[in-house]
Amino acid sequence: MLLTNATLATMQGDSRYGLLERGAVRLEGERIAWVGPMDDAPGGEALDLEGRLVTPGLIDCHSHIVYGGDRAAEFELRLEGASYEEIARAGGGIVSTVAATRAASDEALLAEALGRADALIAEGATVLEVKSGYGLDVETELRMLRVARRIGAARGVTVRTTCLVAHAVPPEYAGRADAYIDEIALPTLARGHAEGLIDAVDGFCEGIAFDTAQIARVFDAARALGLPVKLHAEQLSHMGGARLAAEYGALSADHVEYATEADAAAMAAAGTVAVLLPGAFYTLRETQVPPVAAFRAAGVPMAVATDSNPGSSPLSSLLLAMNMACTLFRLTPEEALAGVTRNAARALGLAEHGTIRAGARADLAVWDVERPAELAYRIGHNPLYRRIQGGTL
Amino acid sequence: MLLTNATLATMQGDSRYGLLERGAVRLEGERIAWVGPMDDAPGGEALDLEGRLVTPGLIDCHSHIVYGGDRAAEFELRLEGASYEEIARAGGGIVSTVAATRAASDEALLAEALGRADALIAEGATVLEVKSGYGLDVETELRMLRVARRIGAARGVTVRTTCLVAHAVPPEYAGRADAYIDEIALPTLARGHAEGLIDAVDGFCEGIAFDTAQIARVFDAARALGLPVKLHAEQLSHMGGARLAAEYGALSADHVEYATEADAAAMAAAGTVAVLLPGAFYTLRETQVPPVAAFRAAGVPMAVATDSNPGSSPLSSLLLAMNMACTLFRLTPEEALAGVTRNAARALGLAEHGTIRAGARADLAVWDVERPAELAYRIGHNPLYRRIQGGTL
Ligand SMILES: [Zn+2]
Ligand SMILES: [Zn+2]
Repeated sequence: MLLTNATLATMQGDSRYGLLERGAVRLEGERIAWVGPMDDAPGGEALDLEGRLVTPGLIDCHSHIVYGGDRAAEFELRLEGASYEEIARAGGGIVSTVAATRAASDEALLAEALGRADALIAEGATVLEVKSGYGLDVETELRMLRVARRIGAARGVTVRTTCLVAHAVPPEYAGRADAYIDEIALPTLARGHAEGLIDAVDGFCEGIAFDTAQIARVFDAARALGLPVKLHAEQLSHMGGARLAAEYGALSADHVEYATEADAAAMAAAGTVAVLLPGAFYTLRETQVPPVAAFRAAGVPMAVATDSNPGSSPLSSLLLAMNMACTLFRLTPEEALAGVTRNAARALGLAEHGTIRAGARADLAVWDVERPAELAYRIGHNPLYRRIQGGTL
Repeated sequence: MLLTNATLATMQGDSRYGLLERGAVRLEGERIAWVGPMDDAPGGEALDLEGRLVTPGLIDCHSHIVYGGDRAAEFELRLEGASYEEIARAGGGIVSTVAATRAASDEALLAEALGRADALIAEGATVLEVKSGYGLDVETELRMLRVARRIGAARGVTVRTTCLVAHAVPPEYAGRADAYIDEIALPTLARGHAEGLIDAVDGFCEGIAFDTAQIARVFDAARALGLPVKLHAEQLSHMGGARLAAEYGALSADHVEYATEADAAAMAAAGTVAVLLPGAFYTLRETQVPPVAAFRAAGVPMAVATDSNPGSSPLSSLLLAMNMACTLFRLTPEEALAGVTRNAARALGLAEHGTIRAGARADLAVWDVERPAELAYRIGHNPLYRRIQGGTL
């Protein structure tokens, strides 16, 4: 199939957006076979896009869309002035999500996750990363990863699973984080890997979660299994997580509001992507903005994702994440679009996604807009016209 | 028709949300005939809502959705570091929207506005307020109001038109704001009223627009024509607009970030609604939060709206405006929902909209959620199940 008469944001090459006006893309099977000016296009069945914008399919490279329950009641309690103690007594916080996730059936987890996945897909997403991390016991962590895989099968979307068993210390291990790593985290990695459920390993390096030495033990286990790593790092304070991630050659360090210039240099040297999560920044009313200028100067690729989760970012829109990245973090619209395409692919270790070029996966989004800046400029509006996944409209 | 087995957020009475679980609503023609427990419901054809939430249809009481062009290029230039002078030289700012609006045909204005209206309607909106204010000459202001009326006819949605001819001083009147009011604003009001195009009269009271004396002249003309008034007031500085609005018994004072306790008292005494516009606050990265505690203490009704416009709030989602009102202004989810229903109706002078009660308009939204707090909690997700406008599904 030939898509013709399109404005192509190829997201590669030196020009802004890799823009090609009056362009065409030839799809063969699940691949892009040819990209170029429409006047040079090969013949065959053609779909005239009437000048519409074509981008790579969007990639949400950081999400937690599999979980039980929601936290709307907690959101309401807090806004009505309840103290943290009152919220905790009412069963709030991550502990409530862990309890609801453990109690939910696989079918219930899948049904809820599909609703969130569908919202992302309706905005042109073709790849979703999905993390575990609300089980915090071996069986529930593995169930979360299996449910994540089923999203891909159910919707024909590419799902990358990330084992985030090192997300938090569950109540039964309070004060015994190292024992949790020995008895839960490492066995989860081993079993999940044996079952083929894990594409990458993640952790949360923060005062309220795990320190760098504990994360290093998780990363050593991942390395022994041949699994790539990524890390929730420097979100609420500077803990050394970004540097640790770089030392392990991590795919990405995520959040990174409190990262430093030295962290940026280490990440650049390691090829570690900075995944910016403005939905959490917005919801938590954080004021520390990630060091975007330092990332630019050092050449750290920046991705943008939803961080979709029930507590700090109940967000299911990549377009809105793009707008927030521009408005709150002052990314340019081009950086925001690269953040949900080319650099998001890199944050997932996907070499064949995220750009429009011959040989790449035929994952594309067609938009009812004239120029790519409109995608980040508009708020709460979905101009998706068509979505192409693996060559199929 | 009887809607049964519903959770009703009636938005009236003393309980939170006026909540009625296992409730039913009987519709007759364009009205609600009866509301009560499902077990007491009259017989007849029934639609089982399976416990879903029913709210009044949403009301966007402050929008500027009729305009030509967009400002995506300006958004991009600014994020790429262009100075205000460079942007002005590239034709940016409100002047660019005025030029594009004047140059656009009625059909083009309508087609663009319908796209924005459709996004609002898809989230359960049943009433849209639409302002003029990008013509700034008599003919184009009247064209904007006629196009706004056509949105209602085209989509079967209730449209309330507001004449905002006192929005800005166009370049041809630079430095001659009083002459603009005499030669353009007042004639526009007279002709628009004669043509039945104006439901309310608005202005922008700000250093970059009109002062209180100039706005008072516009309000005097509105009063002489028997038209209610409202005002963009205290958005960027304290100019006295909120007090002026109260003196004229305005339906609403809008933005009001810089309003004072004294303003709140005057607004409460006059019954003037505070219309909060968090989309503009967010986009402009404003830090002065409106005095919500003072409005609560004085008993000023608070509405929430999109301010949908191409410059300071390119937002077409009332659900997102609700989330922003909670997250950024610390409204409770109940205040946010009242802000887009009961109080939004009041800001438009509509006595029969915005609550679920016998005798009211049968404008309803049915949501795939269990509790009303979910509407404000989620970000970038649309759980609308059905929309009922004037008794029609
Ligand atoms: Zn996360
Ligand atoms: Zn406005």
